[in-house]
Amino acid sequence: MSELLGVAVLGAGHMGADHVRRLDRVVSGARVAAVADPDAERAKAAVAGMDGVATHTEAEAALDAPGVEAVLIASPGEAHEEALLAAFARGLPVLCEKPMVPGSAGALRVVEAEARLGRRLAQIGFMRRYDAEYRQLKSLLDGGRLGRPLMLHCTHRNVASPPGFTSAMLVESSVSHEIDAARWLLGQELTAVTVLRPRPSAGAPEGLLDPQFVLFETEGGALVDVEVFVNCGFGYEVRCEAVCEAGSARIGDAHTMVVTEAGGSREEVPQDYLVRFADAYDREVQAWVDATRRGRVTGASAWDGYAASAVAEAGVRALETGVRTAVDLAGRPALYDPS
Amino acid sequence: MSELLGVAVLGAGHMGADHVRRLDRVVSGARVAAVADPDAERAKAAVAGMDGVATHTEAEAALDAPGVEAVLIASPGEAHEEALLAAFARGLPVLCEKPMVPGSAGALRVVEAEARLGRRLAQIGFMRRYDAEYRQLKSLLDGGRLGRPLMLHCTHRNVASPPGFTSAMLVESSVSHEIDAARWLLGQELTAVTVLRPRPSAGAPEGLLDPQFVLFETEGGALVDVEVFVNCGFGYEVRCEAVCEAGSARIGDAHTMVVTEAGGSREEVPQDYLVRFADAYDREVQAWVDATRRGRVTGASAWDGYAASAVAEAGVRALETGVRTAVDLAGRPALYDPS
Amino acid sequence: MSELLGVAVLGAGHMGADHVRRLDRVVSGARVAAVADPDAERAKAAVAGMDGVATHTEAEAALDAPGVEAVLIASPGEAHEEALLAAFARGLPVLCEKPMVPGSAGALRVVEAEARLGRRLAQIGFMRRYDAEYRQLKSLLDGGRLGRPLMLHCTHRNVASPPGFTSAMLVESSVSHEIDAARWLLGQELTAVTVLRPRPSAGAPEGLLDPQFVLFETEGGALVDVEVFVNCGFGYEVRCEAVCEAGSARIGDAHTMVVTEAGGSREEVPQDYLVRFADAYDREVQAWVDATRRGRVTGASAWDGYAASAVAEAGVRALETGVRTAVDLAGRPALYDPS
Amino acid sequence: MSELLGVAVLGAGHMGADHVRRLDRVVSGARVAAVADPDAERAKAAVAGMDGVATHTEAEAALDAPGVEAVLIASPGEAHEEALLAAFARGLPVLCEKPMVPGSAGALRVVEAEARLGRRLAQIGFMRRYDAEYRQLKSLLDGGRLGRPLMLHCTHRNVASPPGFTSAMLVESSVSHEIDAARWLLGQELTAVTVLRPRPSAGAPEGLLDPQFVLFETEGGALVDVEVFVNCGFGYEVRCEAVCEAGSARIGDAHTMVVTEAGGSREEVPQDYLVRFADAYDREVQAWVDATRRGRVTGASAWDGYAASAVAEAGVRALETGVRTAVDLAGRPALYDPS
Repeated sequence: MSELLGVAVLGAGHMGADHVRRLDRVVSGARVAAVADPDAERAKAAVAGMDGVATHTEAEAALDAPGVEAVLIASPGEAHEEALLAAFARGLPVLCEKPMVPGSAGALRVVEAEARLGRRLAQIGFMRRYDAEYRQLKSLLDGGRLGRPLMLHCTHRNVASPPGFTSAMLVESSVSHEIDAARWLLGQELTAVTVLRPRPSAGAPEGLLDPQFVLFETEGGALVDVEVFVNCGFGYEVRCEAVCEAGSARIGDAHTMVVTEAGGSREEVPQDYLVRFADAYDREVQAWVDATRRGRVTGASAWDGYAASAVAEAGVRALETGVRTAVDLAGRPALYDPS
Repeated sequence: MSELLGVAVLGAGHMGADHVRRLDRVVSGARVAAVADPDAERAKAAVAGMDGVATHTEAEAALDAPGVEAVLIASPGEAHEEALLAAFARGLPVLCEKPMVPGSAGALRVVEAEARLGRRLAQIGFMRRYDAEYRQLKSLLDGGRLGRPLMLHCTHRNVASPPGFTSAMLVESSVSHEIDAARWLLGQELTAVTVLRPRPSAGAPEGLLDPQFVLFETEGGALVDVEVFVNCGFGYEVRCEAVCEAGSARIGDAHTMVVTEAGGSREEVPQDYLVRFADAYDREVQAWVDATRRGRVTGASAWDGYAASAVAEAGVRALETGVRTAVDLAGRPALYDPS
Repeated sequence: MSELLGVAVLGAGHMGADHVRRLDRVVSGARVAAVADPDAERAKAAVAGMDGVATHTEAEAALDAPGVEAVLIASPGEAHEEALLAAFARGLPVLCEKPMVPGSAGALRVVEAEARLGRRLAQIGFMRRYDAEYRQLKSLLDGGRLGRPLMLHCTHRNVASPPGFTSAMLVESSVSHEIDAARWLLGQELTAVTVLRPRPSAGAPEGLLDPQFVLFETEGGALVDVEVFVNCGFGYEVRCEAVCEAGSARIGDAHTMVVTEAGGSREEVPQDYLVRFADAYDREVQAWVDATRRGRVTGASAWDGYAASAVAEAGVRALETGVRTAVDLAGRPALYDPS
Repeated sequence: MSELLGVAVLGAGHMGADHVRRLDRVVSGARVAAVADPDAERAKAAVAGMDGVATHTEAEAALDAPGVEAVLIASPGEAHEEALLAAFARGLPVLCEKPMVPGSAGALRVVEAEARLGRRLAQIGFMRRYDAEYRQLKSLLDGGRLGRPLMLHCTHRNVASPPGFTSAMLVESSVSHEIDAARWLLGQELTAVTVLRPRPSAGAPEGLLDPQFVLFETEGGALVDVEVFVNCGFGYEVRCEAVCEAGSARIGDAHTMVVTEAGGSREEVPQDYLVRFADAYDREVQAWVDATRRGRVTGASAWDGYAASAVAEAGVRALETGVRTAVDLAGRPALYDPS
């Protein structure tokens, strides 16, 4: 395969610019063919130093630019539905950052549109599926050595939440990663959710319910609990322990170098998801480029994007009402049947 | 202090015989003065090889035997209330194995009897309070360096449950250790409990709800979650992570020797609580002997024994009803005010 | 940078074929322009599925092929000197697998040839310099937080040695990685070497002195000890502890997933250097491609390749004589002065 | 066993006073019958609060005091030979702190005196033999699962050396623990020693050769290397890795509580040998009391004390001469044959 896949990148913010750099300098087999951002300066800044990459202020103009064979959507969530439908209309393979579409209604429209096409074009950017530790765990669970999974204990901590972060966002944004990871690891849909609210940390902004403790039930009778704590102050920690019938397995405590100095032995804790999941982003985009060049679609589907939205929506209701809330999921189109 | 404290041991079963051995050969400053067990042979077997220790079939006879200055109750739980009241009547200091009294009504009677005496005589055998790791954690939390505790995540796993173990016993027997540990670590009463029931493990006996996931709320707004899994098959694991406003601390993953052989690096997991908590039992009894010889009472009180029973009772109701259940606690006599 | 760097790969054996795959599918910014191997079938097999890559049986033909802008030498060590000189003659940047040249005399000829050119063209493939753990350690030592390094304790274990592996190869092949790593981590030349020979393991082939314990002294008075054990049977383990004036740091015990099953808690140990250092190889080649496209040369130099050979030669003499052996190093051309 | 063993403690300095406390309050089955110290005030201070313990300024007076059935020697090393011979003359069982006797000549006289008696009376205080981690390792090696031991890699670090500590003391005092541990773990005599001297740490007192790297050869062809670093500044670290034909095992990295705060995850490192080996001292004295009450002698013998002195002496010569030095060991009396 010697020709490079021409990719249009929609959105040139923090994440979009990072993907532009990745496609240009990290990933093999692709090139940036066009970049779109409503802010023309931002688009230009993202391609500085790269030869011959046209920038646009309209997403559709980028999709129609010469040499565009695939689309990477990294614009704000509200723009995703329109961008996905535009890509579908052109038959372009898409890698769409999460959330696929904010709100399950819009997400379902995307699912239905792709189902009408009759073939998958979209991959959703749940990058944990490409993290080496999560893949080890998935492979162990799928291998069956530990028997049926009974519980997943998850921890999701951030040093501090960004300005404007709301109590609902702990569930719909932070925990959405655990929602997808749990569905993927277990191969089961989540059927109900309960949110417990300990007294908030003094380190959390006034009014923010932080931490929260979120409990999911699955169709197979497993239990998934998630501590989400977005102003923990000490590090970016993502852990998962799978408790199975014949053993347990934990990820997220990986360490590399141990330094011993006066008073103690120390392992560094990453402070940021871009550090913790840098490799996962690289592998995700490489896998998407490789599959696309072979005419395939792999990874999380639009259905996974929809399910994550629907579960998160139930989670926000559970947070607001304080009671166990069932997840109401539409019927899954045959296109998304597990192969 | 050169004279040895004369101790009557009530009950010569597995635990009682172990305490006889401990008093005779491990602990400094005490001697076994009498042993009582309804099974005379069992009592005699427990003192084999020890000079001049009288055995009895009646508890009260042992309490009245010459040289008895203190009592260690290791008989079955149903016999505890009567034995405690008999010790109180004689003014004898007592170390009583948990549960202090099965059922909160009887436990409250013991509390009221001791309150009427106006001085503490009883220490309850929650041995985790003497475990080196738990003490490290307690000391860290009390020191305040990590700020207020927000959540405790606990794990309590046994290789296999004994015959006749019921679903309720996971809460009232196994989790009673976490109930006391949480109360002690946080210095707070538990106010409500919810029990979740994942689909039972194939490794659990037919009909046993195992594992369970138990959630406690505290008067200070903290959350305590406990995975209890008594047929996990792989080891005796007791872990606790305290998540605080300025950091977290974990115990229960201690390891000593790491062995690397073909295929992997291995740390042994204890298979039994007597291995995991051997030192804690030794320290507990030594501390009780030391305090008693000085005329003091330390450690968990009859109030702690009552509170554990009351919370466990609420937990069993929560298990049976499937809903959040408030803990109904009697008023605490002034005798048990924190000093 | 949109044009891809055209690379000729010399050697299509195990390592060469792996580099062809890496340049084609993993690394960004490069393409395989030619492959040479005396075995024509092997060369063809390495490029199967790739469009328009010419294969050759002569190395020089590949260097002269159209589109070749740089060379990756992965042929057997004896062919390296000629290939390096041919690349120098054409002004082509080179990445040369280790050993640069077997024997210090030939290695010195390469150094002198490049010195005559007056500019660096060669990078030597000491991939540990690109391993994330080694880089963490290097960065820590360079930062000075731990003070001056006093000792490096190194472990280098393989599951089993390949057929024909000799006692001298433990030093000149296996330990050559530690020789380079120690020079790089400490920024010092190694000045003397002693080799101790414990009684060989029953697991080693008849006549092979395995394990060995190799001690290096450095010009700055530091001590480097290396356990090399190439038939340890249990895993591929590469560890390094730097003991400094104000602390110590260890790498090589990194773990990711911990699995607990009956009897113990287990972390996997890699069985193979391609697993342990897969990322390091990817980063090394990517860094070489990136630097080459910018007209730069980074990484280990021909001087480093020569020094490794000279120290290894002294090590083999030390093994044979059983006594401390000084390292005899030629004068370093100014071209290799640290910048 | 209800009567308590009456013990005379010789020496009421730091270590002696600690043993007095241990016999009085920690150990079961013993009582302090007499204490001797040339400094009468120090002897009295050590028994403050204990009823009826006579103090003496002469060791022999303490040995002859009423009720003395056994002796614990914790006086300075120079007083040991005379004290041991005095105990032998009286037929008293002895626990003697290390070094048994400074200098191999005096140590050999003690061995010969005990051999003439024809029965063992002395146990030497190598407390690592009672450390839980060392015992785990010993048990693993003896079990044979890992095959024959090939190498022991040892680390012995102190925060800072006491005033007056000399370069020779690193070998004869600090490393004497590793000398005994290696002999015990391997069940082999050490036959030669080499001492390497890296450039001293800036943290070491002027003139002190610290760290040192000590290499022992054994009669069975194993290699034992010891990093000894008594001014490392950061902690008291004692580690040992046994590399065997079928696997390796490490002790000394045990951890208990892991605390995560801003910037990292931390495990405490003990700062002092009394913390690290507190349990070992307790177990050692308890085991000695238990064996003595049963008329037995277990633990390290006078021969072990002599061998440690002889090896340490060779080590000091090796340090001074810079060359490999053979250990010259007298013939072992039949009394010390392994049973």
